[in-house]
Amino acid sequence: MKIIRSVSEMQREAERLRVAGRKIALVPTMGYLHAGHESLMREARRSADVVVLSLFVNPTQFGPSEDFSRYPRDFERDKAVAAGAGVDVVFFPEAHEVYPDGFSVYVEEQEVSRILEGKIRPTHFRGVTTIVAKLFNVCKPHVAVFGQKDAQQAFIIGKMIRDLNFDVKMIVAPIVREEDGLAMSSRNVYLSANDRANATALYESLRFAESEIKQGETTVGKIRESMERMIRSKGAPAVDYIAFLDPERFREIDRITIPTVLVALAARYGGTRLIDNAIVRVKSS
Amino acid sequence: MKIIRSVSEMQREAERLRVAGRKIALVPTMGYLHAGHESLMREARRSADVVVLSLFVNPTQFGPSEDFSRYPRDFERDKAVAAGAGVDVVFFPEAHEVYPDGFSVYVEEQEVSRILEGKIRPTHFRGVTTIVAKLFNVCKPHVAVFGQKDAQQAFIIGKMIRDLNFDVKMIVAPIVREEDGLAMSSRNVYLSANDRANATALYESLRFAESEIKQGETTVGKIRESMERMIRSKGAPAVDYIAFLDPERFREIDRITIPTVLVALAARYGGTRLIDNAIVRVKSS
Repeated sequence: MKIIRSVSEMQREAERLRVAGRKIALVPTMGYLHAGHESLMREARRSADVVVLSLFVNPTQFGPSEDFSRYPRDFERDKAVAAGAGVDVVFFPEAHEVYPDGFSVYVEEQEVSRILEGKIRPTHFRGVTTIVAKLFNVCKPHVAVFGQKDAQQAFIIGKMIRDLNFDVKMIVAPIVREEDGLAMSSRNVYLSANDRANATALYESLRFAESEIKQGETTVGKIRESMERMIRSKGAPAVDYIAFLDPERFREIDRITIPTVLVALAARYGGTRLIDNAIVRVKSS
Repeated sequence: MKIIRSVSEMQREAERLRVAGRKIALVPTMGYLHAGHESLMREARRSADVVVLSLFVNPTQFGPSEDFSRYPRDFERDKAVAAGAGVDVVFFPEAHEVYPDGFSVYVEEQEVSRILEGKIRPTHFRGVTTIVAKLFNVCKPHVAVFGQKDAQQAFIIGKMIRDLNFDVKMIVAPIVREEDGLAMSSRNVYLSANDRANATALYESLRFAESEIKQGETTVGKIRESMERMIRSKGAPAVDYIAFLDPERFREIDRITIPTVLVALAARYGGTRLIDNAIVRVKSS
């Protein structure tokens, strides 16, 4: 497994691989790898000849009052996880090379970036699309793998690929959960034991929504109310949103009239913000 | 010479060429080719194995009250000029494929884009960087050639290449002028015979500035005042700006204290806006 730290070296390596006819899959991460990331790496392994894992805690996707400086980092452990998952190249750049002094060019999605996560975190998605565009230009992948856990992010990156004509195939891998249902996240380490136990209510509420929808409930407001009650009854977190969306266009709906619905939510346990979602097929058929 | 109209076909062709080890040079244009464009194509011809010329009147770089719909177009003539200049591939896409319904992702330089041309044309450079990023992703060039005539555009595209890590080498080719000094531009066809004659004052004022600077004048205000008088004395056009800039950072200066100065100007003759500039080395040595 190669470790590459410089942008120009990564570009040379990627170009060499492409000209040699090797297919490259990129897994962009902020490190502190968990089983969710491992599933992305396995997906990449299946889809390409060469797997590139990027490890970069991207400052531009954090707001000024967010957890950039305390975001968990453990390069030695990440390296071992990557090697175990069959990664070929780890791209681990330094912040000052990624964002040199005077950096002034951003990639911005200007519609879906403004709702839900984007409403609460106004510059977040601009940071995400900018770093992903940069990683595409540096790692030159044929395929890039993202997690469905960040559903809005996945949608926006797909939009960026199409609108800016990146010649990259996107794979979105399903959410990986702890045994009790909590979605895997590097931020789960922030949770107190109590909050960790209470946070299972998020997935329970998504399962509830799924069962309501499959049983024919069409009024979003009613389902949302019950979900909110379920979540608040365990540890009383602040619920940022519970949204029902058309997954094709990422627009909120208030009645279930389409065959597939995305239910997405965010809640804060103490200082820790958790997100989760479920794609629900309305008819089980 | 191949004519390619679809994005996916252009990407396949570019990928095939790259994997075959051929070096691609891109010359992005809005068509209505003149001798300035021909010099860009010759530069491209010298720098690569395959020359791709793109022809696309890019709607996103025109403001709502600007000349998008009347911008001159002549595909048959452009094709002949391109063939004569040794172009291998003409990429001539359709607007609805370049900007499909619901297009929402832009590339934006957020500092230099706000001054001079960007002040007068607030969304212009966002349109330019977005289309150039798209053309890079579609045509996959090793080298891209732009004209120094659009000095601010060239600076901003260079900044985009660096900040977003495009693996593209940029060449900026010198301004090509008519015999009487007027800078070549597709927009010159708009000028009345009178305005066409008077517009030579733009280049004359730049030559004057050069001679003043070389003779040791260091006060920008004094040179600018004389230039403005020279331009206005012929046909009294509206002068949008006359700016003296540090070409390394594209920042305005008011005293000549650096070894190389960019003098840039814009003026309106009737409904036609013309721009021109000169790079002045302070010491002739």
